[in-house]
Amino acid sequence: MNQRIGYLGPRGTNAEEVLVNNLKVAEENLVPYATVSEVIFAVAQDEVDQGVVPIENSIEGSVNETLDILTFSVDGVFIQREMVVPIKHHLIARPGVEIKDISAIISHPQATAQCRSYLAQNLPQKPIIAANSTAEAVKRVAEQDGTVAAIGTELAAKIYNLRILASDIEDYRDNQTRFVLVGKEMARPTGKDKTSVVAFIYENRPGSLLQILQELAFRYINLTKIQSRPTKKALGEYCFWIDMEGHIEDEVIADALKCLRCKLRDVKVLGSYPRG
Amino acid sequence: MNQRIGYLGPRGTNAEEVLVNNLKVAEENLVPYATVSEVIFAVAQDEVDQGVVPIENSIEGSVNETLDILTFSVDGVFIQREMVVPIKHHLIARPGVEIKDISAIISHPQATAQCRSYLAQNLPQKPIIAANSTAEAVKRVAEQDGTVAAIGTELAAKIYNLRILASDIEDYRDNQTRFVLVGKEMARPTGKDKTSVVAFIYENRPGSLLQILQELAFRYINLTKIQSRPTKKALGEYCFWIDMEGHIEDEVIADALKCLRCKLRDVKVLGSYPRG
Repeated sequence: MNQRIGYLGPRGTNAEEVLVNNLKVAEENLVPYATVSEVIFAVAQDEVDQGVVPIENSIEGSVNETLDILTFSVDGVFIQREMVVPIKHHLIARPGVEIKDISAIISHPQATAQCRSYLAQNLPQKPIIAANSTAEAVKRVAEQDGTVAAIGTELAAKIYNLRILASDIEDYRDNQTRFVLVGKEMARPTGKDKTSVVAFIYENRPGSLLQILQELAFRYINLTKIQSRPTKKALGEYCFWIDMEGHIEDEVIADALKCLRCKLRDVKVLGSYPRG
Repeated sequence: MNQRIGYLGPRGTNAEEVLVNNLKVAEENLVPYATVSEVIFAVAQDEVDQGVVPIENSIEGSVNETLDILTFSVDGVFIQREMVVPIKHHLIARPGVEIKDISAIISHPQATAQCRSYLAQNLPQKPIIAANSTAEAVKRVAEQDGTVAAIGTELAAKIYNLRILASDIEDYRDNQTRFVLVGKEMARPTGKDKTSVVAFIYENRPGSLLQILQELAFRYINLTKIQSRPTKKALGEYCFWIDMEGHIEDEVIADALKCLRCKLRDVKVLGSYPRG
């Protein structure tokens, strides 16, 4: 790939790990942004060719910011690919520093919270310092000459020439994040695809969700995710984020969406892409 | 109320604001915990009588940790009440410090991220320091004699005798969190209630969700939220978190659940409680 790809920065984040390890993107093509919204808007405005953003974490839940921006704020930006990656936290320190030497731990509060058992057992009573990201935490350890250890990614340890003292120190082994690659074209069918749509229902029409599911079940289309979401227009007005197996170019999916559009206020296709 | 209530601490968090402002709990009955899981386990083990935990934020999404613990890790802990509260961020400094004097901003990374536009316009280029919680940020401003400002709650400003320099500085006006009060008894019907359940389906039985919705639609039971969730037992095995209008003691709800239990692997009731 020789395209510019935006992602949630700074250098050394999990999003960058996905780009480097899973998508094999060269460093010079990476463009870090400060927020998920900025990444998606950069794609919409052709500042970058594609973007990588988190869409769901197994512990924290759906990233509503990502889904909301794709649903309500941009048109013609599609999910092209999904990558489910395990979130692994590592204890990182300057070369020469051992676990017994560590005076404090620095990381993003979400990361330290996810390693609470490890820290309680192995580094009890050590002060916990907050950083704006795990990547910033690792950078700060690299910049100061001390015995503070960071919790961060393997990539960040490598970027800043630091040493991993303990690997996979997270409490929950099933901590995974689903990232998506977004861009302006729809991905081609591969035969093993998934389609993400948002179904907007008419107000005060109970049973709309039932109709959606009947339309899909009738065609043996398999649902892999469903989530209701307020439309932000009126209290109690919902739309549904739905992932289903199949590609929008499959006749059965195209037919189902055509029939749904007759019954619902709108159905927006967020993308068809290979299953991760 | 004269009961001990656990909540997500430390002192001055949004959860404590809910307890003090919405539930009028006296300070001496409050027991702060470090994580959502600890609050719920403290209720299960009778360390405290009730607990308050966040269950959903309009930007960040469902708090899967809360829903997972209630679903998979405890029995007999019920949602007794819900409180939907606006999340308001305030710029807080020591008395005498004006906006033009501020040298840096400290807060939880999620809070500073949610105030990016305000900070860019009013405090451009100022360093952003991370804290483990908004409450910790405010405490640190109170403890040092300086010109650093915190982003935090009104309650924290009051607890630490600081001054609010700017109110409601969050970028998204519709930033709301739904908190729930949990305890060991089911709340009594009020006539305007909501019931939260988890429906566990049999593996490899497509159409189970359709059956659930038919069972509810047939009885004119209104769904207010639905979300699929992996059961963590097998890939592609789901359960559904469903909120519906009505109380479990209403005949129509009790009947629906009875019929669902015949068709599904299990239906766990997380609680019936007044609609927020």
